[in-house]
Amino acid sequence: MSVQKTATDTTSSVSLTLDEARDLAIAALTRRGADNRNARAVADIMIRAERDRCASHGLFRLQGYCASLDSGKVDGAAHPTLHDMAPGVLKVDGKGGFAPLALELGLPALADRARQQGVAVLGLTDIYHFAALWPEVETLGELGLCGLAMTQASPMVAPAGGTKPFFGTNPLAFSWPRPGQDPFVFDQATAALARGEIMIMARDGHDAPDGAGIDPDGNPTNDPAKILEGAQLPFGGYKGSNIALMIELLAGALIGSVFSVESGRQDNKDGGPPVGGEFILAMDPSRFGDAGWAAHTEVLFKELEAIGVSRLPGTRRRLARQETPSQGIRLPKALYDTVQDLAVGNDTDGD
Amino acid sequence: MSVQKTATDTTSSVSLTLDEARDLAIAALTRRGADNRNARAVADIMIRAERDRCASHGLFRLQGYCASLDSGKVDGAAHPTLHDMAPGVLKVDGKGGFAPLALELGLPALADRARQQGVAVLGLTDIYHFAALWPEVETLGELGLCGLAMTQASPMVAPAGGTKPFFGTNPLAFSWPRPGQDPFVFDQATAALARGEIMIMARDGHDAPDGAGIDPDGNPTNDPAKILEGAQLPFGGYKGSNIALMIELLAGALIGSVFSVESGRQDNKDGGPPVGGEFILAMDPSRFGDAGWAAHTEVLFKELEAIGVSRLPGTRRRLARQETPSQGIRLPKALYDTVQDLAVGNDTDGD
Repeated sequence: MSVQKTATDTTSSVSLTLDEARDLAIAALTRRGADNRNARAVADIMIRAERDRCASHGLFRLQGYCASLDSGKVDGAAHPTLHDMAPGVLKVDGKGGFAPLALELGLPALADRARQQGVAVLGLTDIYHFAALWPEVETLGELGLCGLAMTQASPMVAPAGGTKPFFGTNPLAFSWPRPGQDPFVFDQATAALARGEIMIMARDGHDAPDGAGIDPDGNPTNDPAKILEGAQLPFGGYKGSNIALMIELLAGALIGSVFSVESGRQDNKDGGPPVGGEFILAMDPSRFGDAGWAAHTEVLFKELEAIGVSRLPGTRRRLARQETPSQGIRLPKALYDTVQDLAVGNDTDGD
Repeated sequence: MSVQKTATDTTSSVSLTLDEARDLAIAALTRRGADNRNARAVADIMIRAERDRCASHGLFRLQGYCASLDSGKVDGAAHPTLHDMAPGVLKVDGKGGFAPLALELGLPALADRARQQGVAVLGLTDIYHFAALWPEVETLGELGLCGLAMTQASPMVAPAGGTKPFFGTNPLAFSWPRPGQDPFVFDQATAALARGEIMIMARDGHDAPDGAGIDPDGNPTNDPAKILEGAQLPFGGYKGSNIALMIELLAGALIGSVFSVESGRQDNKDGGPPVGGEFILAMDPSRFGDAGWAAHTEVLFKELEAIGVSRLPGTRRRLARQETPSQGIRLPKALYDTVQDLAVGNDTDGD
């Protein structure tokens, strides 16, 4: 660990190895009652983001995870259980714990089932999901499978035709395997913008773009502070709204979990994640009868390249992970201080 | 059948019963070599749209269907075959015919498989799809299943980061069952606008909205004629583009069908549909372990109503179908004349 001020940046930052970062996260979680398995799984999901230089889902989330252990909302020692519902349907009951351990239990079983059946679904219930969705679909992609994941959240987004927060940012993530290379992966909110982007616009006095949200009276506004009081809007108007509603039905009604409005009402607003569920579909292309599917996939990406589209979603993440294992990561000093306090400070009720 | 001029509309229209409309369609198709089963299936899909007053997918499509029989591109006597690929995967080889008969063969088998497995996929290959996607998912919804359908088309839409037509309008349709009432259904293109809407704007001298498309040089334009020469754009920017790309992978690489760019190159531009495939996923909510799923679904729609969203996608179609079986439909005179010519005129090479 080393503190540096760069010539071009007066904000000091701290460099850490990925292992140092992981150890801090595990320390912070375990002193709040998380057991070893949960602490490691949660730390791993944050470090996977740090490895890819996705700061928004990295150690920046540690405070929220810790807050939900401190408040007693989340069980840091939850033992998720796997259930066989139907030949193509698995369920993991998260038992009120964070999502990562439930995913570690469910994803390998889902992959096996998808290979057996051609297609399978994993529903996760009673989990607290505070990470991006790309890790789970990327994992499936690296196993040679196509993955599709969706989750709800606290209500922040108004549906088309409505003016009150109803949907979560309801992300949808997709992966497609490319044997011998990185899978194609995207992960996108059905909200027009991430909540965090609007908060930064409000802080910096910038206008939000058209279509980002509405004020508490339901009128379109470019004032980010008013959007935060009112509601965000879905991406792409009514079409994005329909996709957000589909996600409520699949990650809520189908798998036996809550809707965003229900989750929001239950939440104690401790700054951590709300309770929810997750829908994950996996398909094995090798079971669909076209032995040339992988070569055919490359035709598509070559055709895209031929019209000038060579940068696919996730490219920046993939480049970052080639560097961070040796170069380490750099945390803003303020975030580092927070992480350090959470891990070893005296300002918590950790033991 | 009766020709009328209304007081408020100087354009004359012709009223027909649904059976009269179906008979005309069947006559037009069979005299071009379609066998009885294909002619009836194709006519039924058009009449289902007319019944719902979806003019754009009704008898308006007959000319295109007939053109593809006249040109020899589509086999009007195709015998689609059903194949069992894996416990959760079925395939229908359309054998170069129109999609409706392939769907009639595949959908009941898909529904059975979804009930057995919890989730199943039907891939349709070597079909010519010229209809909306809502009929197939609505059928699944009425059977108590959740449906998700996607198909590619001729390239008309530029991907995010590109300036040339690459995706079809790549629609996505979804249904969710609501036992005792109509399923929730949406069907939407991943293009920002339907091709037909842009054609009408060009005809009427209206501007296209921002984000609808780009000119042949790749610059944003509101000139609909320039968009038709250039490329349409996806809905919702890069997020819609990612969904369009997902549809290429699922309705192309996964099921062993063509991509939109491949389909476009093969097409003889006879005015009918291009060759393609279709991906249809079906899930049985009763196999996911939450016996209260249907009641829980109604909670979601009641919550939506409570914030003022009572009009769901498909409402207008559902209202129309309560009227058209008794009241019949009304075709613009010009369309009626075209249909009549196709059915009984001397201007074709039908026998």
